[in-house]
Amino acid sequence: MRIRLNGTVIERRAVWFESGKVMMIDQRALPHRFEVAELDRHEDVAEAIRNMTVRGAPSIGAAAAYGMALAAMENADIEGAAGLLKGTRPTANDLFHAVDHMLRCIRSGGDPLSSADAYANDIVDRCLSIGKHGADLIRDDSKVMTHCNAGALAAVDVGTALAPIRMAREMGKDLFVYVSETRPRLQGMRLTSWELRNEGIRHAVIADGASGHFMRKGVDIVIVGADRIASNGDFANKIGTYEKAVLARELGIPFYAAAPVSTFDFSISSGESIPIESREESEVTEIEGRRIAPEGVKALNPSFDVTPSKYVTGFVTEIGILGPSELERLRGR
Amino acid sequence: MRIRLNGTVIERRAVWFESGKVMMIDQRALPHRFEVAELDRHEDVAEAIRNMTVRGAPSIGAAAAYGMALAAMENADIEGAAGLLKGTRPTANDLFHAVDHMLRCIRSGGDPLSSADAYANDIVDRCLSIGKHGADLIRDDSKVMTHCNAGALAAVDVGTALAPIRMAREMGKDLFVYVSETRPRLQGMRLTSWELRNEGIRHAVIADGASGHFMRKGVDIVIVGADRIASNGDFANKIGTYEKAVLARELGIPFYAAAPVSTFDFSISSGESIPIESREESEVTEIEGRRIAPEGVKALNPSFDVTPSKYVTGFVTEIGILGPSELERLRGR
Repeated sequence: MRIRLNGTVIERRAVWFESGKVMMIDQRALPHRFEVAELDRHEDVAEAIRNMTVRGAPSIGAAAAYGMALAAMENADIEGAAGLLKGTRPTANDLFHAVDHMLRCIRSGGDPLSSADAYANDIVDRCLSIGKHGADLIRDDSKVMTHCNAGALAAVDVGTALAPIRMAREMGKDLFVYVSETRPRLQGMRLTSWELRNEGIRHAVIADGASGHFMRKGVDIVIVGADRIASNGDFANKIGTYEKAVLARELGIPFYAAAPVSTFDFSISSGESIPIESREESEVTEIEGRRIAPEGVKALNPSFDVTPSKYVTGFVTEIGILGPSELERLRGR
Repeated sequence: MRIRLNGTVIERRAVWFESGKVMMIDQRALPHRFEVAELDRHEDVAEAIRNMTVRGAPSIGAAAAYGMALAAMENADIEGAAGLLKGTRPTANDLFHAVDHMLRCIRSGGDPLSSADAYANDIVDRCLSIGKHGADLIRDDSKVMTHCNAGALAAVDVGTALAPIRMAREMGKDLFVYVSETRPRLQGMRLTSWELRNEGIRHAVIADGASGHFMRKGVDIVIVGADRIASNGDFANKIGTYEKAVLARELGIPFYAAAPVSTFDFSISSGESIPIESREESEVTEIEGRRIAPEGVKALNPSFDVTPSKYVTGFVTEIGILGPSELERLRGR
C-alpha cells in the first residue's frame, strides 16, 4: 500500500518478514504515528494478534502464518504454537485456516518461511482479484459506504472491501466514500480514512449512527469486509455491519461483503455457530485512555455481529461475485 | 432529579432560576464534574444553548423561556432577544414554542419570571404524565433500549423517554436498559448512564453500532425522545434514531417516541421540512479535545435525523399514547 509520510511516499505491506523477524505496521498507533513492530518470537506474534497491533481477518491469518514459521525456526513445539496462535481471537476464520495450512506445510517438510510468504502473497493476489471483480459494481460518479477497515491494513495489502474502491478509482471512476468511524476502536476513522487519504480518494468520516441518514440521502452501494462466512451465507463482521445490511435492504441499496475464500467456513451451517468475541468494557467506556462513562457504569462490547444472508446482495470473492445461494461453488477451493 | 454526589444525594432540575440568575447543570462537564452555570444576561443563555451547556428539546425550551425573562428584567429589546435565542439551534421545536409563548406573555403584561417558571413547571408536569402513560408499555422483567439522553437533563426534570423507565422502576418492575452511547457527543454514555446510575436502574452502555446486535438478541421496547414532530408523524431526533426505528420494525420490536405536545409542529406536513442542524466536524474528528482522525480528513456531522412515521409504533405524550395517524387530536393543545 501507498503510505504518505511527511511528504514522501513509501510502499509497505501490513505484515511481512524481514531479517529474521515478523514485521507489522502497528495499527494501534495509526493515524498519528507510523510505527513498525518487529517480533522475533512466535509468542510475541500471538500477543500482537490479541492486542490488535495487527487486525483484519486476512492480515491476522498472514501474521499467524509468519508466527508459525517463527515457531518452526525457533524449534518450538509446533502444536503448542498452533494452539497459542489459534487461541488469540475467536471470530475470524482466516486465523484457523492459516495455522492449519502452516501445520500441514511444516509436517510435510516444506520450508516454513517460504510457505508463510506464499500464504501472504496469495492473500494479496486474491485481493487484487476481489478488486477487479468488485470494481465492476461501482459506477462512475457514485457514493460508496464502508465500515471498519477492510483495507490493505486488514489484508496484508490492497484490501478486501477497499480493493474494489481502489481499483474503481484507478480506472478513473469518480467516487465518494462514507466511512463510518466504527466505535469502539474507531478503525474506520483511524485506519480506513488514513488509507483513503494516502490514495487521494475523496471521503468523509461519519458517526456510526449517521450511516442510515446518509444511506437515506443517497448511497449507491455498501461494501464491507467479513471475518467468517457460514455455509448458508450468514456472516460475521465488525459490530455495526448488521445494521447497515438491514438499512441497505430497506432502502434498496446493494449490499456486498468482500472476502477471500479463506473466510468461508463450510464446517458451520449458519451464523448461529459463529463465536462472537466480547472484548474489554474499557474499549467502550474509555477513549484514548480516558474514561468517558460515569464511574461504576458497565458496558457491553461485542466485537462482531452476524448478518443473515437474506440481507446480502452478494459476496465479492477472488473467483467472482456470488449470491448467498451460490456458495457451494466455493467449497473445497 | 436525584443526583448522587460523593455519597450524598441532592435534588436538582436541569434548569432553574435563582437569585436573579438562570442556573443550569453544565451538561458538558458531566459525568466527571457536577457544575452549575450561573447566567445573568440573556445573551449568555443563548450562548449556553448554542454550546450545549444545556441541551435536550424541553430543557432548551425552558432555558429560552428563562432567557426571555432575563431579557425582560434587563429591559433589553424583547424582539431582539427572541431572535437571538431562536437563532441558537434550528431543529428542536420547543425552542420556538417557548420563545413565542414568552413573547405573548410579556406583550400581554404578564410577569416574565412567573411565566418562565410556569413554563418550566408545566414541562415537568407533562413529563410526569408521559411517564405514567409510558410505564404501562414496559412489562416487568423486560429489556428497554434508548438513545441519546431524553432524561431529566433534557427535560428540566423527570425526562421524556426516561420518564416511563423511571416510573416503571418505581412501580417495582424489573428492567434492564441498553444505552447507546450516541456519538459524536456521547450523551448516552455521559448523561443517560449518569441518570440511570443515580436512580439505581440496571443498564449497560453499548456502541451505537451494537444496537442492532442487541435488538436481534432480544429487546422488548425501544423508547427515544423527539426534537420536532411533523403533522404526519415523521420526527427528528438525535442522529442514530432512524437506524433504530428501521431495525425495530424489521425485528418486530415496538418503537416509541416520547415527547410533550410542544414538540409537535403542525405548521409542517412532513419530516422533509425539518431543518437538520450540522455541527462542527471536530465533534466527530476529536474526542475530549484530542484529534483521532488523520490530519486533513473531513467529517460530516448532522446532529439529527428524520424517522418516517411508518416506523413509529406510537408517540408517548402527556395526553396518552397516540399512533402516527392520531396526531390530529393534539392540534391546538
